[in-house]
Amino acid sequence: MTGFATRAAFEAALADLPPPDAAIVAQARERQAQLTKPAGSLGRLEEIAIFMAGWQRRVRPRLETVQAIVFAGEHGVATRGVSAFPPEVTRQMVANFNAGGAAINALSRACGAALSVVDLTGDGPSGDITEAPAMDEAECLAALSAGANAVNTQADLLLVGEMGIGNTTPASAICAQGQAESAGAWIGRGTGIDAEGLNRKRQAVDAALRLHGPHCASPFETLRRLGGREIAAMAGAILTARQRRIPVLLDGFICCAAIAPLQCADPAFTDHCLAGHCSDEHAHGMLLDRLGLRPLLRLDMRLGEGTGAAVAVQIVRSALAAHNEMATFAEAAVSGAR
Amino acid sequence: MTGFATRAAFEAALADLPPPDAAIVAQARERQAQLTKPAGSLGRLEEIAIFMAGWQRRVRPRLETVQAIVFAGEHGVATRGVSAFPPEVTRQMVANFNAGGAAINALSRACGAALSVVDLTGDGPSGDITEAPAMDEAECLAALSAGANAVNTQADLLLVGEMGIGNTTPASAICAQGQAESAGAWIGRGTGIDAEGLNRKRQAVDAALRLHGPHCASPFETLRRLGGREIAAMAGAILTARQRRIPVLLDGFICCAAIAPLQCADPAFTDHCLAGHCSDEHAHGMLLDRLGLRPLLRLDMRLGEGTGAAVAVQIVRSALAAHNEMATFAEAAVSGAR
Repeated sequence: MTGFATRAAFEAALADLPPPDAAIVAQARERQAQLTKPAGSLGRLEEIAIFMAGWQRRVRPRLETVQAIVFAGEHGVATRGVSAFPPEVTRQMVANFNAGGAAINALSRACGAALSVVDLTGDGPSGDITEAPAMDEAECLAALSAGANAVNTQADLLLVGEMGIGNTTPASAICAQGQAESAGAWIGRGTGIDAEGLNRKRQAVDAALRLHGPHCASPFETLRRLGGREIAAMAGAILTARQRRIPVLLDGFICCAAIAPLQCADPAFTDHCLAGHCSDEHAHGMLLDRLGLRPLLRLDMRLGEGTGAAVAVQIVRSALAAHNEMATFAEAAVSGAR
Repeated sequence: MTGFATRAAFEAALADLPPPDAAIVAQARERQAQLTKPAGSLGRLEEIAIFMAGWQRRVRPRLETVQAIVFAGEHGVATRGVSAFPPEVTRQMVANFNAGGAAINALSRACGAALSVVDLTGDGPSGDITEAPAMDEAECLAALSAGANAVNTQADLLLVGEMGIGNTTPASAICAQGQAESAGAWIGRGTGIDAEGLNRKRQAVDAALRLHGPHCASPFETLRRLGGREIAAMAGAILTARQRRIPVLLDGFICCAAIAPLQCADPAFTDHCLAGHCSDEHAHGMLLDRLGLRPLLRLDMRLGEGTGAAVAVQIVRSALAAHNEMATFAEAAVSGAR
């Protein structure tokens, strides 16, 4: 078992992030320059192949083992009418994941990812962030560790998603904490709430920030007070992937919000991450800008579960197919540019 | 053999475009509304599934047979220094396609498409459009028919690409013909030409439009005078797909330029088409707007060959996986929105 036994262990991991392999990056870039196409003409596919090479430390990176993890957790704040769906849907959807009938099941199969479902609902709802911290220290360490322990250390690529009715509210609170923009800028319609519900979300985020903001002096405290179990678990999984040099495809707003505090601590935190997509959730584009990430897809998706990341796996597969399989100018006896 | 034996046969096909099946579209939309996700939360994946259903006339559309066709042709205008690559690269790349080493080979394999290579270089270069029509009437009919005959009438989805050193010049001429924008607005760097080459392209397009513009009163004449063999073949293939109700994934600027004259004749011509991507070629975004198409991908690609469309096949696969495989709210016993 790996995981984060103490707050200090989590902070030590965050303070010791490995970089990609610069020599392999250079070799992969050199290979790209020799393939039978005008220089740069595969655009972002070239960047993706070089990125994957650097993190996998293989000039010809592979995608044999792709892991998708969906973390599910319940939220005390969900009883405050901040979602278009009732709180029991989180557990119903866990059953749907386990039965294979949800969108992430279909999309994981389509992209060749093995799906792991990590159900944190058995630990009970996270605390209502308008009144109390989402978790105490032990609970937060358990959630971070659940994320860490779910990672297949042999994965060639990891994607991370979530299910948690009400979880755009803590995600917005995490994003708004310590930022110049007003809290309202980080709030959106989630699964499709109406104007009154949007107003309740704004009030909940404002209340949570008043209560916890002054105490959010570290990534750990921000996740513990404003987050939730599945949110902390995503942060733990993505940090663990970095320690193992496993590249990560991020999903939507909640997934990106989970690592926003880690990226505040170290702007290089997202170096091992690709943004799978920019969702239709209001603040996701703004958050991606802050994380320094340019999304691969914009397909107006806003489902979570890891679905946007799963669609983006196919882009990575295309990138690696071109990088690994194309002939060079010399091999194919094709003339170069004049 | 199908194909277009006469100009009248081509024009008759263009005047009799079948629509998608409205009843199946309605049933597919109804299915989407029952799947275990917030309404609309899969965004464009939902639209794609409904589009595919309507054209395939299947409530649960399939992607068993995906055909990619790359058409190759040489251009008289290529001797005028309008490309960064020498004209012989067209034939060298045909050999590379046949040997399996080009980007479209790798990307077709990655997306599960069967690749057909249609080599029109044996018919010689198209006429230099600055001095003469690209083709005489018989040559243009032969090229349109080569496109028509290359289509697998059993395909569930068709993608079309091209190879032809110099062919952004005729493509720009086709786009500029009869449009309000200056010809210069339709000219870009192609495979990566320098500023002087860009100037030669502008002069070539201006010369071609002066010579042929007054005579381009029909889609056929525009393709015949300003196009080229592989450009007319793409138009013939995409028109044939429409006659067979086969949905089409368009590739880059040349592919879209090939059907611009057909869409001028009937704005509904592109109804069976999805724009696979928006390339980095300068005028492609402007052309997609004119065609009424929103690209699925923007990955800074600018290679042609059908590569952007091949990457986009994976988006269509994801869309159909979700549409066909997800459980309904009733099947999964998940509560709906409040």
